[in-house]
Amino acid sequence: FSTVAVRASAQINPSIRKSEEKVADFVKVEDLPKPKAVYCRCWRSSKFPMCDGAHVKHNKETGDNVGPLVIESPTAK
Amino acid sequence: FSTVAVRASAQINPSIRKSEEKVADFVKVEDLPKPKAVYCRCWRSSKFPMCDGAHVKHNKETGDNVGPLVIESPTAK
Ligand code: FES
Ligand code: FES
Repeated sequence: FSTVAVRASAQINPSIRKSEEKVADFVKVEDLPKPKAVYCRCWRSSKFPMCDGAHVKHNKETGDNVGPLVIESPTAK
Repeated sequence: FSTVAVRASAQINPSIRKSEEKVADFVKVEDLPKPKAVYCRCWRSSKFPMCDGAHVKHNKETGDNVGPLVIESPTAK
């Protein structure tokens, strides 16, 4: 039983687009949300590929320290 | 012992910038690598925050299906 549990939790994506062999996302620069595009890297967001703040709960529950990638348009501060 | 193992593997970032409370990265649009900026979302890249292909090994070892975020400049195909 413990072997199964460890193997399962070694996956970092528990539920997003599991029918896809590899979840890669392609975005054109001109299509990026402005003034900031905040992209999820925790695989817990309900708005994936965008970040919805779910990394906070994941970090609190596991002691992890993951966070998003933020792409800022030229006028953003 | 098994409790410790499960808790540890629930973290999705095993080693990157662990001294930081939260690893968030901020990039200005004009500083994005061209023609493609390939960003890691598996927390296994030796070039983090960029993808170095390490997601392939992670997926193979765990049965996971994670991959990068790719931002393409206007002229990229
Ligand atoms: S919700 Fe995943 S990084 Fe914020
Ligand atoms: S090395 Fe992490 S997504 Fe490619």
